[in-house]
Order: sequence, then C-alpha cells, then structure tokens
Amino acid sequence: MRFEAFSSSELAAYLRGIPAVHARLGDDSELQVVEVGDGNLNYVYYVSSARDPQRSVVVKQAPPFLRLVGEGWPLPRERMEREVAALRRFGALCPQHVPRVYHADSEKFLIVMQRLDSHRVLRQGLIDGIVYPHLADHVSTFLARTLFHGSDLYLAPDAKKAAVGGDINTELCRITEDLVFTFPFEDDPSNVYSPALPAAAVERLRTHEPLRRAVGEMKWAFMNHAETLVHGDLHTGSIMANERETYVIDPEFAFYGPMGFDTGAFIANLLLACYARDWHDRVAGRDPAVYQRWLLEQVAQVWHGFAEKFAGLWRMHERETGRAYIGGPADTRAAEAFREDFMRRLLADTLGFAGCKMIRRIVGMAKVAEITGIKDEVVRARVEMRCLRLAEALLVQRRELASIGAVAALAAQVLAEPVEA
Amino acid sequence: MRFEAFSSSELAAYLRGIPAVHARLGDDSELQVVEVGDGNLNYVYYVSSARDPQRSVVVKQAPPFLRLVGEGWPLPRERMEREVAALRRFGALCPQHVPRVYHADSEKFLIVMQRLDSHRVLRQGLIDGIVYPHLADHVSTFLARTLFHGSDLYLAPDAKKAAVGGDINTELCRITEDLVFTFPFEDDPSNVYSPALPAAAVERLRTHEPLRRAVGEMKWAFMNHAETLVHGDLHTGSIMANERETYVIDPEFAFYGPMGFDTGAFIANLLLACYARDWHDRVAGRDPAVYQRWLLEQVAQVWHGFAEKFAGLWRMHERETGRAYIGGPADTRAAEAFREDFMRRLLADTLGFAGCKMIRRIVGMAKVAEITGIKDEVVRARVEMRCLRLAEALLVQRRELASIGAVAALAAQVLAEPVEA
Repeated sequence: MRFEAFSSSELAAYLRGIPAVHARLGDDSELQVVEVGDGNLNYVYYVSSARDPQRSVVVKQAPPFLRLVGEGWPLPRERMEREVAALRRFGALCPQHVPRVYHADSEKFLIVMQRLDSHRVLRQGLIDGIVYPHLADHVSTFLARTLFHGSDLYLAPDAKKAAVGGDINTELCRITEDLVFTFPFEDDPSNVYSPALPAAAVERLRTHEPLRRAVGEMKWAFMNHAETLVHGDLHTGSIMANERETYVIDPEFAFYGPMGFDTGAFIANLLLACYARDWHDRVAGRDPAVYQRWLLEQVAQVWHGFAEKFAGLWRMHERETGRAYIGGPADTRAAEAFREDFMRRLLADTLGFAGCKMIRRIVGMAKVAEITGIKDEVVRARVEMRCLRLAEALLVQRRELASIGAVAALAAQVLAEPVEA
Repeated sequence: MRFEAFSSSELAAYLRGIPAVHARLGDDSELQVVEVGDGNLNYVYYVSSARDPQRSVVVKQAPPFLRLVGEGWPLPRERMEREVAALRRFGALCPQHVPRVYHADSEKFLIVMQRLDSHRVLRQGLIDGIVYPHLADHVSTFLARTLFHGSDLYLAPDAKKAAVGGDINTELCRITEDLVFTFPFEDDPSNVYSPALPAAAVERLRTHEPLRRAVGEMKWAFMNHAETLVHGDLHTGSIMANERETYVIDPEFAFYGPMGFDTGAFIANLLLACYARDWHDRVAGRDPAVYQRWLLEQVAQVWHGFAEKFAGLWRMHERETGRAYIGGPADTRAAEAFREDFMRRLLADTLGFAGCKMIRRIVGMAKVAEITGIKDEVVRARVEMRCLRLAEALLVQRRELASIGAVAALAAQVLAEPVEA
C-alpha cells in the first residue's frame, strides 16, 4: 500500500462518503479543509462545514515514513493502528479527557476525530504563562484511570496477557529506547548540543557512573516491565487544554510498559517548563518566580492526585471482588502495606523516567520549544545546565526522594543555585 | 481434537511411521514400550528396540487435562507446543544440557525425544545423598546461556519483542501465579498443611506484613517483568543427572519472565533438600552435616558459576558489537558498574523467588518428596518450620543479603537454630 497525501478536495470527497463523519459535519455540500499541525510526522487537517463552522472534525494522516525526512525514514504503518486502538481504549476508560474517534482507515493511514477548537497545545499555553486551574486534576485522573485499568491490579491474567501480546509496538519503542535511553549518553550523531552548553556537562552524561547506572536501570525497566498500556509519549505537546478542559492526544507510542513512564514524562515536562521561565518571564518583564511556583505546585498536585485516585480505584476494585492482589481478603493491613510500597516504587520509577526525559530534551535530537525558544545562548545554556542537574538528581536519588514534596523542594533548590555556563 | 492415550501397540505403529524416530530405533520390527513417569500430568513411555535396547527414545504425551484428575481439570493443549518450542530454543543455546527433540506432533499432544537412560531425576538423587561433581557447573551453564540469550542484553529489540509476544503461556503462568504467589498466603482450600505444623506458622504467612509485601513484589515481578525466556519450573524434579551429565527437562511452563525465577527455583530446591537431610541421614545412621554442607556449597557454586558465565557472555557480546547495552563503547567503567548493579538486583530477585518457591512447597498443594517422605510428623514439622523461616528471611532481606556467601551462611544459621514444633 503506497501512501498518498490527500488533496483538500480529495479529502473532502472521501469524508463525505463516511456516514459517521457526514453526520458530524452535516449536510452542507461544501467542506473547508485547512492543513495544520507541526508537520514533523503527520499531516493534520481541520475540516469544517462552510455553512456552520462549529461542525468540524480533525483528520490526521500518518504516512509510513517520517514526514520531515520523507520515505528515506520509514515508519511502520502500524503506528496509526496503535494510535487508534489506544485512543479507543483510553477513551473508554476516561472519555472526558480523550478525543472521540469518529472514523479510522488503516488503508489510508487516516483517523477522523473530535476537533478540539477551543483548546491549545499545553506546551504553548505554558510558554504563554497560562494558569490552568484544573490541569493537575484532569491529568491525574487520566493517568490513574488508564494506568490502573490496563494492569494486573485490575485485569484478569488472561486479558492482561492478551493485551500485552496485542499491543507490541516495536518500531516506536525503538525510537524511545534509542532517543531517550541510549543516544543522549553516547557520542551519537543525532544529538544536538546548544552552542554555549559546556563540554563538561556533555562529558558528565557519558561518564558519571551513578547517572549511567540509573539510566541503564530505567532503560531495562522500559524494555521489560510490561505493567500496563502506557501512552508512551505523554509530554505537554500531547495534551490539549483550555481553562476548563484537558485532552490527551497522540498515543501512537502506546505499548505495555512501566506506569512511571507516563507519570514521569508529564512531570519532566512541567519541570522543563518551570526552568525555562527564567527567560520567558524576564523578556516579558515579569518575575518568573510566580509561574515557576505554580508549575512546581502542579508537579506535586498531579502526583498527589494520581496517587490518591490510583490507590482509590485499586482499593475499590479489591473491595468489590473481595480479594487483594497479594491474596487474602481486601482491606487487610498487609494489602495496604503492599499498596504503599507499590506507590513508593512507582514514585521512584516516575522520577527516574522524568530524569531521562529531561536529559533527552536537552542533548537529544528532539527538543522542546520553551528551551529552543530562548534566544540568549548563555541564558539557554544556564537553563539547560539546571535541567541536567535536576535530572541527574532525580535519577540518582529516585529511591531516596520519599515524597513529591521533596522533589518539588529539590527542584526549587536547583533553581536557586548558581550555574556557570 | 479429542485426546486419546495410545496403547503400546498403537504407539509402536505410530513411531514406526516417523523417519527421524525410525532412524533412531533401527530397523527392528519389534519395539518395546514401557510406561514410566509420575503420572500426575503426562503419559511418559520408554520405547526401545527389542533387539538392541540401547536404541531407545522417550515419548511424552501431554493430554489437554490434568491426568491425575481427568477431563474435569482441563489444561491448554498449547502446553505441549510451548514445551517443544522451549526445548528447541534451549537446546540450540545449550545442547549439552537439553535432551534432543526427534519429533513433535501437536495434533497427538506428543513429543519424542532423547532418552536419558543412565540419568535419574535429581531430586531423587539428592534424597539418596549422591554427590554430583559437575552439577553446579552444568546448571549454571544452562542458566547463563538460556537467560542471557533470550534477553535484551543479547537480542535485537524486534526479535525480543516478537519472542515475548510468541511465548505467552497464559494458563501455565496462572498456575504459578496462584499456587506460588497467592494461595499459600491465604486460606485457600488447595493448601495442604502437615499435621504437626504449628498454626502460628500458617498464620504468620497470612499476616506478617514484611513477608506479604515482599511476596507481593515478587508476584508483580513474575507477572510483569518479561526479561527472558525462562524455564518456569526449574526445580530438582526438572533435572536429570548422573555424575557426568546433567539435563534440564520439562519446560512446559516456559514464558518471558524474570531471570531470577529460574535461578531462584533451583536454589530453593537445593535448600529444601538441605533442610530435609535432618531426617534422611539420621534414619540412615549418617551425620547430616556432611551432605548438608555439600548442598550449601552447591548453592554458592551455582550462583557464582552463573554470575560469572552470564557476565562473561554479556561482556563478550558487548566487545563483539563494540557497544554497551547502556550506550557508548564496550568495556567502560560505567558499563561494568551497570553490570554489577544488574547482577546484584538479579541476586535479590533470585532470593525473593527462592523464598516463594520454598513456601509453596511447604504449605501449598504441590509438595516435594524429600519433605513428604519424612515419616516422623514432628521432625517433618521442624524441617518445615526451618524452611519457612529461611524463606521469610530470603524474601524480606533479599536486598541486604549482598552475596551468595551471606545466603549460605544464613541458611546454615537457620539450620543450627532450635525450632519448636
């Protein structure tokens, strides 16, 4: 099956033939097609009724190659199938935070879904300093509901094992294995270092043993710990939000992996956003401390919200079935002690993965706009140094940092320390 | 496909039609068929040429139900396919310690393989006090070669992921999940307690929080950590040995699981054998200390041999590819530090799984002959108490027990302590 991008008129004609989409867009014979999206991986279109622009959908076409490079960088066509399956699964578990899928066509590498027209990509919103009053609550709900219900804590063993076998996502996992856990720690040609970043900081990523040991352990966990269906790429660019609503998009990296990979990805991106304020607020003539404090509060709140909701779902399930995961009746002290251990280990995993995700955004190929947008090279390097310093501490001290409060305090401390760059 | 057990003449006729088997047994028109085996799960036959009894094979027929109970306890027919696949895989990696498969027929639930006629089941050999001079060397070779080559340390990510998806073994994993990690720690009707075992010891398995937390963590690891193709049931009844050779048999429980489950199973069974000597040697008028010391030496030697060979295969692979699992070139200090951490964690896993395997053999449904064979109820209960005490210590202290020497010392200490039963 060769991929061909639709022209606007071809896309409009195609969509008119799909009853579910037609119902959504109405009888209007004219459809407006506008291409949007960052264009690295996919083609994304807004399609709306010319007569009633409120009636609209988003169409995402994922070619079997990296759009940025072309057919020379093939991507598996299964990624669209994985994305559709994950959107449907997450949507069933948490409909309030996942866009609805109206139609999917794996022959055409295409998916038609709910348009989020009053929402913006969260990363951009954070760059603009927007306060989202419900963000931590919404994201923690998404995390708790999806991570719990895909795991052995909820699913019967046969259903879980079938899901593990069905959700293998080899090619996109390989991208993460390489770009998050391997290339940033070696002299790989895909790495991109910002001009003023001291060579010693790069050297440290390759040679500092406690860091390398910790990253190796996280890589092993990523590749082996098939705990639940994770989103697999839950950074702030995979979230669309406004002040009332929050949606998680783009789960094409979804696979059975460690829960902490999703919680860690989100927290890592809050921390990157926090450290980047030193530039964005100062050029806007604002004190960065205010929004930085809000961002660190979100780190604590999303973890607290997640931990409480996850443990709550777990307790409720054990009460309903009358049986604890560890055996014996629900509500014993032993069952609760195991749950506390579990959440502690999950926090340690979260911090380890957060550290890896921060480092790859500083020295790896794929950057984040809040940092690449820092025009002053020296300021940017200072921000990057702080990110690396915090990431290393999160990785190396992940089991000692016994609470998310201690994490937020550590992040504040690293933010206050001088860096030389 | 209904299962029907062969009569001797039907089996002989069937085997004559299989060229690979025919070549093995020779042209002799008469085949001798003798049923052997414990009969709980499978039908096992020795088939030999009447003219030249040296020419012989073993035939294992695995009905799709528990033979002991009948069709009322169905077992998946896939277990024979899993066993054949694992025998072939392990045989390719370690031919000197795995019986050759001559023929497999999944329609007939049947496998024809190398007859080990001068070998005995290791458990029985240990009950008889036989010293196997090469046992630790052979078993550690098997463990190192199989556990390493199925993992991400060796396989390319796509090959590993395909193997994980292909080796899912739901029904037999469920048996382990229930019988090893769950039922022994609750009031399950399948548990069998020996008459003189104090009620307090049973109660402790259900209520002692540090133990329950540790067992819960091992259960989670068993169900989630898809590290390598493990044998899955590597007790001393799954090994056939004489003083020169050692073969690993019966890998029907094979699946992608944690490495420590195999190393732990073997060590657990050495420890059970060790503690049971108090009866077997005393009734034979021997000092148990001599063979107990030999058994504890095997615990240390099998781990040392395994750790050295596993790390050696790993180093060699990294040198050959020029690349470390954690990224960067082979032979860096960071790569070696990660390897040391890995082996430490693997020892902790080994001890945790060993503890679970010991406990299930004391209070669970499936017992071991060296303990059920103790006729004196009070002596048996004392042996069982010691096994439970050591198992608990292995589980709870698994991360503090920093070397296998410390484990052997602990085992010797528990052996020397008085127990009341």
